[in-house]
Amino acid sequence: MLRSEVKQAQRRAAEMLAGAGVVLTAEEAGRIEVAGFGLGRLEEQGLELITYVNTDRYCAKDLVLFPGQTCPEHLHPPVNGEPGKMETFRCRYGSVYLYVEGEAAETIQAAVPPGSRDHYTVFHEIVLQPGEQYTIPPGTKHWFQGGPEGAIVSEFSSTSRDEFDIFTDPGVVRLPVIVEDGA
Amino acid sequence: MLRSEVKQAQRRAAEMLAGAGVVLTAEEAGRIEVAGFGLGRLEEQGLELITYVNTDRYCAKDLVLFPGQTCPEHLHPPVNGEPGKMETFRCRYGSVYLYVEGEAAETIQAAVPPGSRDHYTVFHEIVLQPGEQYTIPPGTKHWFQGGPEGAIVSEFSSTSRDEFDIFTDPGVVRLPVIVEDGA
Repeated sequence: MLRSEVKQAQRRAAEMLAGAGVVLTAEEAGRIEVAGFGLGRLEEQGLELITYVNTDRYCAKDLVLFPGQTCPEHLHPPVNGEPGKMETFRCRYGSVYLYVEGEAAETIQAAVPPGSRDHYTVFHEIVLQPGEQYTIPPGTKHWFQGGPEGAIVSEFSSTSRDEFDIFTDPGVVRLPVIVEDGA
Repeated sequence: MLRSEVKQAQRRAAEMLAGAGVVLTAEEAGRIEVAGFGLGRLEEQGLELITYVNTDRYCAKDLVLFPGQTCPEHLHPPVNGEPGKMETFRCRYGSVYLYVEGEAAETIQAAVPPGSRDHYTVFHEIVLQPGEQYTIPPGTKHWFQGGPEGAIVSEFSSTSRDEFDIFTDPGVVRLPVIVEDGA
């Protein structure tokens, strides 16, 4: 991902957060994580995150999804004998379509990213509007997509160790590689 | 505390949250916890809380302080061999004066509740404005007060077990006793 692309996505995410009344410090706005998952199609498959705290006991983030932007299917495995990450998604703004293991919906409201159909395998649908939340048990495959206005989702969880996440798509690279282009 | 007092404080807290862009479901608004700490002076020493999630691994709440309202000094002891609760306060709205163990400020910005001076013993001052946060280590005495506009504070923490909290004031009763008055 180019540095210019990262900066543009950071600005857009910061504007969405500000519009929803979420105040960030300047330092925080400058370190919004832009995850393109190595797929080269950030608008389609990507996620913007600001991590407020991540200790050995708990973690809290706000996630930003642009309209129709999808976080690819993945799960959080056990690490060092601890159960995988458990996470609670609370929608703050917009809406989010969340898919987890379980009975598949007959038709889903999200659009699976074209060209990546094989890498989306769970279709039990949960739709979250502002004020609604859902807790994803450890080790459960899940993916999610921002609705027509995008979404801001607070994530409350056990310790976050993103580098251990297991993605269904073998092409995913979780930790961003940024190419400097002078931006 | 009278049921009418509880309901009034719930409405006021819900209005402050809504004003700051924090969306609650109707169910959540109806279960905002109003803690008067058994002291009979809710406006002076009290706290309003909405718990979003409290699992055996993590907890997330929003705290509401009315202008000048004080949460009395307390600490979170170890429970069942686990270290005491660790908590991160993130100010969302207004401002909060937080006091923890450590070098005392020469003069503090908060006003210690009159009549309870003996029960406030730590004066290392941290002032949080929106977007600012502070993590309180386990077992550390702390108390906090809402600024002139009150405060909304997100609390991210390890598991919450309020019934074990140790208050400096022996007169404190943590879990609310509500007297029905037909409200």
